[in-house]
Order: sequence, then C-alpha cells, then structure tokens
Amino acid sequence: MATDSGDPSRRMLAADVASNALGIELLDVEPGAATATMTVTPTMINGHGIAHGGYLFLLADTVFACAANSHGPVAVASGAEVSFVAPAREGDALVAVAAERTRYGRNGIYDVTVHRETPEGRVVVLEYRGRSRTVER
Amino acid sequence: MATDSGDPSRRMLAADVASNALGIELLDVEPGAATATMTVTPTMINGHGIAHGGYLFLLADTVFACAANSHGPVAVASGAEVSFVAPAREGDALVAVAAERTRYGRNGIYDVTVHRETPEGRVVVLEYRGRSRTVER
Amino acid sequence: MATDSGDPSRRMLAADVASNALGIELLDVEPGAATATMTVTPTMINGHGIAHGGYLFLLADTVFACAANSHGPVAVASGAEVSFVAPAREGDALVAVAAERTRYGRNGIYDVTVHRETPEGRVVVLEYRGRSRTVER
Amino acid sequence: MATDSGDPSRRMLAADVASNALGIELLDVEPGAATATMTVTPTMINGHGIAHGGYLFLLADTVFACAANSHGPVAVASGAEVSFVAPAREGDALVAVAAERTRYGRNGIYDVTVHRETPEGRVVVLEYRGRSRTVER
Repeated sequence: MATDSGDPSRRMLAADVASNALGIELLDVEPGAATATMTVTPTMINGHGIAHGGYLFLLADTVFACAANSHGPVAVASGAEVSFVAPAREGDALVAVAAERTRYGRNGIYDVTVHRETPEGRVVVLEYRGRSRTVER
Repeated sequence: MATDSGDPSRRMLAADVASNALGIELLDVEPGAATATMTVTPTMINGHGIAHGGYLFLLADTVFACAANSHGPVAVASGAEVSFVAPAREGDALVAVAAERTRYGRNGIYDVTVHRETPEGRVVVLEYRGRSRTVER
Repeated sequence: MATDSGDPSRRMLAADVASNALGIELLDVEPGAATATMTVTPTMINGHGIAHGGYLFLLADTVFACAANSHGPVAVASGAEVSFVAPAREGDALVAVAAERTRYGRNGIYDVTVHRETPEGRVVVLEYRGRSRTVER
Repeated sequence: MATDSGDPSRRMLAADVASNALGIELLDVEPGAATATMTVTPTMINGHGIAHGGYLFLLADTVFACAANSHGPVAVASGAEVSFVAPAREGDALVAVAAERTRYGRNGIYDVTVHRETPEGRVVVLEYRGRSRTVER
C-alpha cells in the first residue's frame, strides 16, 4: 500500500472539529502545499454585513496548517500576518491555496491566498503569511 | 439623555451575528478601547486538541473592531499581525483587551492582548496588532 | 524612442541617495517586479558581528519600492512584515527579488526574498512582505 | 560595584558598528525597555526626498535589540512588523522607545514607537513590533 504524502495533514484535519464544523474541505495536499474550500454561512456575518475577518483568517489558518504538517513532524502556528483585500459575502464559495515559501531549522513560512471565482475571474479576498514551528511530541 | 461614547461599537456588535453566535460579550468600550470575553467551546477545537487559532484571532478581531469604531466613523480592518503565545483549551474563559496605539489620517493601529486568568495570574494567549481604515458610508 | 516600462522606478532610484550610498544596484525592473543587489560592508555590522537587520530590511525595502513604482503612479510604503531567516556577513553579495502579489484600489502587496548564492545553492536571508499605497502628487 | 541592569545591552551596542556609524545614541536602558535617538542625515534620504524607511526601521531595530538583550541572555531578532505612520526629513531628531509586551519560552515581543518632537507635540513616525528569540552562545 502506497503512503500518501499528505497523510499527516489529512489525519490532523480529520481530527479538527472546528474546521469540520464549518464545512472546510481539503481539496488537495502535497508536500508544502494545500488547497481547501469553505462557503460563507449566515452565522459568519459580522456587523458590517460581510464575512467576519476571523472566519476568513480561520480558513487560511487551516490550509496553512495542512501545508505545514505535510512533511510529517508536527508543526504549529507561531504567528501570521494578514491583509484583508476584499469582502466576502454570505454564500460565497472561498478557495484557500497555501504554498511554502521557505523552511529553516524548525521554522517555516507559508503564503496563503483566499479567493473566490467570479464570471470575470478570480477575486482575491485575503492574503495571509503564516509562520510555523515544528514541535517535539 | 446622555450619549454613550461606545454607542457606535455597541450597535455594530449587536448586528454582528458571527460574534454573537460564539457568545462573545462586550464588557467595556470607551473611545479607542474595548474589552470582550469568549469561552472556548467544543466546536472551536482543532486537530491538535486546542482552540483553533482562527477563533482566537476572531475574538481579537471583534474587540479591535469595537475599539476602532468607538470614535463614530465606520472603520474596517485592513490587516493584522498576530503571535500565538500560548494554547487555549475547551472551557477557557478568554479576555481580550484592545487599546489604540495611534491614529493618522484614515488609519488606526490597535493592540489587542487575549489572556486567561489562572490562580497564578494572567496567561497571555495571543498578541494581535490590527490596522483599521475609516470608510465613507 | 521606446519607453522602458521600468523608467519610473529607475528615475526614483537614481534620486535615492540612501540606496546609492550603500551601493545598491538595480539589476532588473519590470511591471510589478524588480531585482537588486547589495554587498555587506564593514559599517553594516551589528553588535552580534553580523549584518544589521536594518540594512537587510533597507535592501528589501528599496527593491519593493522599485517594483511598486514600476506602474507609473507614485507608490509609497505603508508597512511591511519581515522574517530574519539567516544571518548575512561582511562581504556577502546579497540579491533581493521583489514580486507583486496583488493590487487592489490604491493598495499593493509585494513579496521580497533576499538571498545569497553559495556553492551549495541559494541561502535565503530574509523574507519581506511590503504594503504599498499610491499617492496623488 | 553595582551591576547596571542595562550592561548587556550597552556592551552589545558598543560593538554595533552600524548603529554607531549612524550616530544612534542610547539614552536609557532598563530591563525590557530602551530609548535611543538618531538624527536624519543627508545620506539617509530616498528617492521621494524623505528618510528611507530602511533607516527608520534600523533605528527601531537597534532599540528593540537593546530592550530584548537587557535581560542577559543573548536575544536575536526573528522578525518584525512595521507601519510607516509619517515621513521623517533631513535634520529630524528621531526618538525610538522600546517596551516589552510579553515573553514566553525563548520568545519575546517588543513594541517600538519612533517619534519626533515638534512645537505642537509628538509626531509618531513609525510603529514597529519586533519578535526576539534567545540563543545559546
């Protein structure tokens, strides 16, 4: 039986109650990369009538964790920087794509872009850069 | 009848379905400052068995929005930088305190610390710095 | 006579006394991208005996400005996030490569990687993400 | 003879060729805090006719290092987030004040504000948040 390189990430996500409860689905995971989707539900809407930035961040953070844990050793987020590029609205199907930028020692840097598809093309919603650190179990 | 300086923030939070659904409660709001609480529920737990960073961020983001909107003009988050300092666990009562650092033009910078109280004192969980921009309605 | 798309950036850099005094050289500029080099001099060394992070940041900031100003309208830095990946030492020839990540309204996000070449391959020294804003003259 | 709590920082800064060459002066250092000044010189000016952001960052980074190393163990910068609040011009006497926000494990977070004094009061030039990590010698 072949070992899938994304197995550690898939196991982690299967145990991620928070991400599963929000309907986040992992579309793809490879060493250092991952793609996931989430649809904006009515309970994700903030006081300005748009998706709460916390949920956009959460989606990015989950796909970042999948990419960072794809190598095997358990990696946790130590921090992140995020720019809110465009609002997302109820019903929007968001796609988050994580790509590894660099790894050094126990550290990693991963870039995540959250976008939505429109008839006119992709609209970027959020740009996220996450910092990971591998931990000893 | 006196106007409460925190009125714009309270109105915004009253309409914030996402924050209300998570049980976030505003304890205090003053010009440029706000305090809120949230208790970590079972559906906030991630694949490492701790509170998902997205929910910690969401709490910080909500209290930041309350502080940034306390002045009246509608302010939205343009970005944030966050460091995950310590894990939070199911049942933890988290407190988020936002303080304005500086405002310039239509921009503002707000620092938020999320902590929990323990018998030994406060444990910092998250340090967040948010960037706001006022918008014309 | 053909107009070079990098002209606005080249004019800006020609007037940049700071970058010129440090020997920063622009190798290439295209719409949304730029590459520059700088060699670490003795006066760039800090109290730990390595290149001061401020000079690594400065190199990244200059190449970011070249990429952000390549489109014509004057763009200024509104902020940046940086991770120090590896130390640089006196005599190191550093290369900084800037690439546009996204633009929206008057905002832009640019990623810069500073590296040095070694017989074993590229060593990343710094990862920088800059935020720009176009201004009216 | 009493031991000054700022001794490790003062020794580090005395060996910091880069900061000394730029005329950076340490005004005060205490555990977790430091204050320094720098005057903007002609060779610090960029292509927009204002102080290059790299030099503003460098000043903040030096005072951050003084605060982070005030505790004794050698601490290095692992990263930083910065917002450029207002321009600085040739001849401006800048003051940078660093304050510790939190420490956890080998990590520290320090906030630095760079400002200049005017007859109308302080003008904030830069807000910087630095991340430190202690290293074994």
